[in-house]
Amino acid sequence: MKIVILAGGVGGAKFVDGAVRVLPAEDVTIIVNTGDDFELFGLYIAPDLDTVCYTLAGIASAETGWGRKDESWNALKNATALGGPGWFNVGDKDLGTHLERTRRLQQGDTLTAVTQAFCKAWGIKSHVFPMSDTRVSTFVKVKDGSSLPFQSYFVEQQCRPVVSGFEFHGIEQAKSAPGILDAIERCDYVIFAPSNPWVSIGPILAIKDIANAITKKKVAAISPIVGGKAIKGPAAKMYQELGIEPSAYSIARHYQGMIQGLVIDQIDTTLAEKIEACGIIPYVTDTIMSDINARQRLADEVMKFSLKLP
Amino acid sequence: MKIVILAGGVGGAKFVDGAVRVLPAEDVTIIVNTGDDFELFGLYIAPDLDTVCYTLAGIASAETGWGRKDESWNALKNATALGGPGWFNVGDKDLGTHLERTRRLQQGDTLTAVTQAFCKAWGIKSHVFPMSDTRVSTFVKVKDGSSLPFQSYFVEQQCRPVVSGFEFHGIEQAKSAPGILDAIERCDYVIFAPSNPWVSIGPILAIKDIANAITKKKVAAISPIVGGKAIKGPAAKMYQELGIEPSAYSIARHYQGMIQGLVIDQIDTTLAEKIEACGIIPYVTDTIMSDINARQRLADEVMKFSLKLP
Repeated sequence: MKIVILAGGVGGAKFVDGAVRVLPAEDVTIIVNTGDDFELFGLYIAPDLDTVCYTLAGIASAETGWGRKDESWNALKNATALGGPGWFNVGDKDLGTHLERTRRLQQGDTLTAVTQAFCKAWGIKSHVFPMSDTRVSTFVKVKDGSSLPFQSYFVEQQCRPVVSGFEFHGIEQAKSAPGILDAIERCDYVIFAPSNPWVSIGPILAIKDIANAITKKKVAAISPIVGGKAIKGPAAKMYQELGIEPSAYSIARHYQGMIQGLVIDQIDTTLAEKIEACGIIPYVTDTIMSDINARQRLADEVMKFSLKLP
Repeated sequence: MKIVILAGGVGGAKFVDGAVRVLPAEDVTIIVNTGDDFELFGLYIAPDLDTVCYTLAGIASAETGWGRKDESWNALKNATALGGPGWFNVGDKDLGTHLERTRRLQQGDTLTAVTQAFCKAWGIKSHVFPMSDTRVSTFVKVKDGSSLPFQSYFVEQQCRPVVSGFEFHGIEQAKSAPGILDAIERCDYVIFAPSNPWVSIGPILAIKDIANAITKKKVAAISPIVGGKAIKGPAAKMYQELGIEPSAYSIARHYQGMIQGLVIDQIDTTLAEKIEACGIIPYVTDTIMSDINARQRLADEVMKFSLKLP
């Protein structure tokens, strides 16, 4: 059994962490959103890749879901004391990752090669890919007509601006990272982790060769909207501002034509019928990944469900 | 009374720290070697500027003379665990300086402007200048005919290669940082701190407009060679490998024509006569800056001596 998971940050990381506890890690390929990547202090930062890798390596902060556990903050503290930007939290250990990634990218390594090397160093046995070695940058279009780089919207402005759409700069030229198409072709099914459909899964699916490869596969998604709310992040707020009621049903409509199955939370049981009417098979369970056991149980159920999809 | 001091790293930093305890800090201008500057992990590092500023700000490590006190090492430790270069020690607090300096340089600020802003943030009242806003890179020519970037020679190879000469890449285009010529013109005298004549004071004097401006002033140097040895660093080894006996007398010959006075250690009293024969007035005292009081006493004596120079 080989599977491919599309993932963004914290929610995606928790799910893949569950998945590698069910299947042999070697059989799990994870395609991670890099639309959030940006530069700070001249360093290349890949927040979703780091969150996924730190989680898989067991070195993520349990409190925040992002960043490193047992972290210190001396570099940023000194940089901000000198007038530097303090809106993006970067701890000292985390900084070590950005330093070495930046060094390797500047010497000509691809993001895929850097990610593989880091996974090896961190003892990660699953196959983690950035969605592309081409730079794709997510911009959030806001109501005043302007366009904000994702991290400015997400972290600096804490998702306050009212969203009117999204742009993925560089997406036309973007090709999947080498290895991704092979992994999709060889997998038994694809899972969209419970990540933001607009800005986490969206950029990955906006890469044409990835979207094309996936159409040939069975796909299940896990709804990141539970009881009309996002477990974390601005997904529900985005749906609302775009004039769509945030619900597991909206997730079904969002992915309609791409997925055969949708895993929704038990709190949304009443939506199962409407989802089925979209031609998508619903699967109802407890989707809240409150601890390691819950991650593993959810991954196990999602996998069994995915396997049975037509 | 206004003075200008030319300085490199640790020895220079100790001396200027003494000087600002004798004169009002506002009356002290320090021109710092930037030939050692280099990039690591994509960050711009200016070791001598940092050593001088950390010392003046009272935040330098007392044990090493460079870097920050109460330092942590999490970023570098993680970066090297990922395969990054570990030969240059950079602590987390120190890294904060490099991050913010790099950010400002990349947004178009000059090194002079960055240095001024950092001095203000650190409460430094003396005027600290990088020798130039133009990039000058010191290379050490070694016996096998190759040329090593300074930090590769100094830190990575720990001064082991046998030196045959020096190159200052970019020196032809280099102009003094704005403010330096004014400061020299207005000062009462210039002091060469007890820094390495080849690779600390040398690059500064290789900038033509600085060397020209200094010829119009009284100049005293403090010998960094004491009893035939360097207090710190490879100065004595360099003299030896270049076929010159390392001594305070060699320092006199090195600066002959540029300085009117040379401060030498009491251990070298017997050299005073030979130095005087070069047309340089010797001043003999205890030049070992073992503590803050010794720094201040030496600075006080050097200043009184400099003032009386013809």
